[in-house]
Amino acid sequence: MIENETIKQQLNHKSIRSFTDKKLSSDEVDTLIKVAQHTATSSFMQAYSIIGVTDEEKKATLAEIAKQPYVAQASHVFVMIVDQSRNQQIASENGVDASVVSNMDRFMAGYADAILAAQNIVVAAESLALGTVFLGSLLNDAPRLIELLKLPKYTFPVLGIAIGYPNQEPQLKPRLPKEFVYSENEYPVRENLVQTLKDYDKEVTTYYDLRAANRRVDSFTNQVTNGMKHQNPVRAQLLQQIKEQKLIEK
Amino acid sequence: MIENETIKQQLNHKSIRSFTDKKLSSDEVDTLIKVAQHTATSSFMQAYSIIGVTDEEKKATLAEIAKQPYVAQASHVFVMIVDQSRNQQIASENGVDASVVSNMDRFMAGYADAILAAQNIVVAAESLALGTVFLGSLLNDAPRLIELLKLPKYTFPVLGIAIGYPNQEPQLKPRLPKEFVYSENEYPVRENLVQTLKDYDKEVTTYYDLRAANRRVDSFTNQVTNGMKHQNPVRAQLLQQIKEQKLIEK
Repeated sequence: MIENETIKQQLNHKSIRSFTDKKLSSDEVDTLIKVAQHTATSSFMQAYSIIGVTDEEKKATLAEIAKQPYVAQASHVFVMIVDQSRNQQIASENGVDASVVSNMDRFMAGYADAILAAQNIVVAAESLALGTVFLGSLLNDAPRLIELLKLPKYTFPVLGIAIGYPNQEPQLKPRLPKEFVYSENEYPVRENLVQTLKDYDKEVTTYYDLRAANRRVDSFTNQVTNGMKHQNPVRAQLLQQIKEQKLIEK
Repeated sequence: MIENETIKQQLNHKSIRSFTDKKLSSDEVDTLIKVAQHTATSSFMQAYSIIGVTDEEKKATLAEIAKQPYVAQASHVFVMIVDQSRNQQIASENGVDASVVSNMDRFMAGYADAILAAQNIVVAAESLALGTVFLGSLLNDAPRLIELLKLPKYTFPVLGIAIGYPNQEPQLKPRLPKEFVYSENEYPVRENLVQTLKDYDKEVTTYYDLRAANRRVDSFTNQVTNGMKHQNPVRAQLLQQIKEQKLIEK
């Protein structure tokens, strides 16, 4: 293992779900957006946008959608957007029919642009001693989010990042042993996963047991298994919702 | 603007498309994978995998798929994978029918996991003076890639990261002015984009003009417009290819 300041910080990443009242300065916001913009982007299309939600009422609505009250406490919620609308408009102004934009390939390219930028924002924020948490939960009700942020056709929300000054110091959450995530040159065949993950399961159970804020005691394989039993009915319509935004062909 | 070592490096990001012969040490590889694993993951599902391609023949095939010869020069190509297979297997071993895994919501969650980890790898690699380039181009032929890496059902490749010691020092590529990417509280209405992007177009043209390795001289709005005219026929089948991997409901 090699460590430097950047890597030390990356290895110490924790999601922050409680924030102080202190707001981000405009300098801090500018820095984070600049970092986002310097992230790599697929074919140089820059097919993403960022909406910084600061309005208190809108943040309260985001908290409702995410079903996470702490979202309303955050100084800023950056909503990362797949944005083919801007490029579609450029092409239209140049007289090119840009309906070709509606397909899975371009949707995924914009989606990747938005998420790469999101992770870069998180690394920069943590280097400034800010706390962050990703909000995949904003997709609990994409249609409501689209209306709230006035997202036009050819755009779709990807995830949110709640950012603020941290008001908690959570434990580091144990990750899967390396060999379950990484392999060389081909995908490995693995047998008896539940059995071979027994030690890791114990580690995760201990983590939840010690976690101050939350008493849930569960193993990793139980969480995965129980997670498979449920499907949020609105999120089950995600493909359809993306098609309605004209981002994927019908 | 606030700068520290991490942010200075992020603002100086450049894709590297030429590598020396020097290979990554196993310590470097371990560090990058550890950083990837400490990235945030949706609902703690860790629904991604990484395949490190080092085999020279396989790298040559990746270079062919990407249509980028420099890919074969890289020390490692990390192929980032949406992986619902591991969790599906865990649920099955626990007697739960995990066919619920086949839907857009879970696909996108795993896709996000893979891409967040990808960006974290790039930041760590650059902090170690390594050079990187994302290879969205691996999706030029996803079926061939799936066969090459023996990817099982419930997995799909997302992108590659070619990594090695840099053998070039490219210029910084100019990004869109902030107001075209960032807005507060709602998506803005923008008119006459081509006109308002005139100065930025000049900047991009100058960048290509000065770039040593490549003589293409083009503006941003021209690139976007021309990009809209073409659709790679294999990539046009991406949604179908993902369905065949059982990741999205048919």
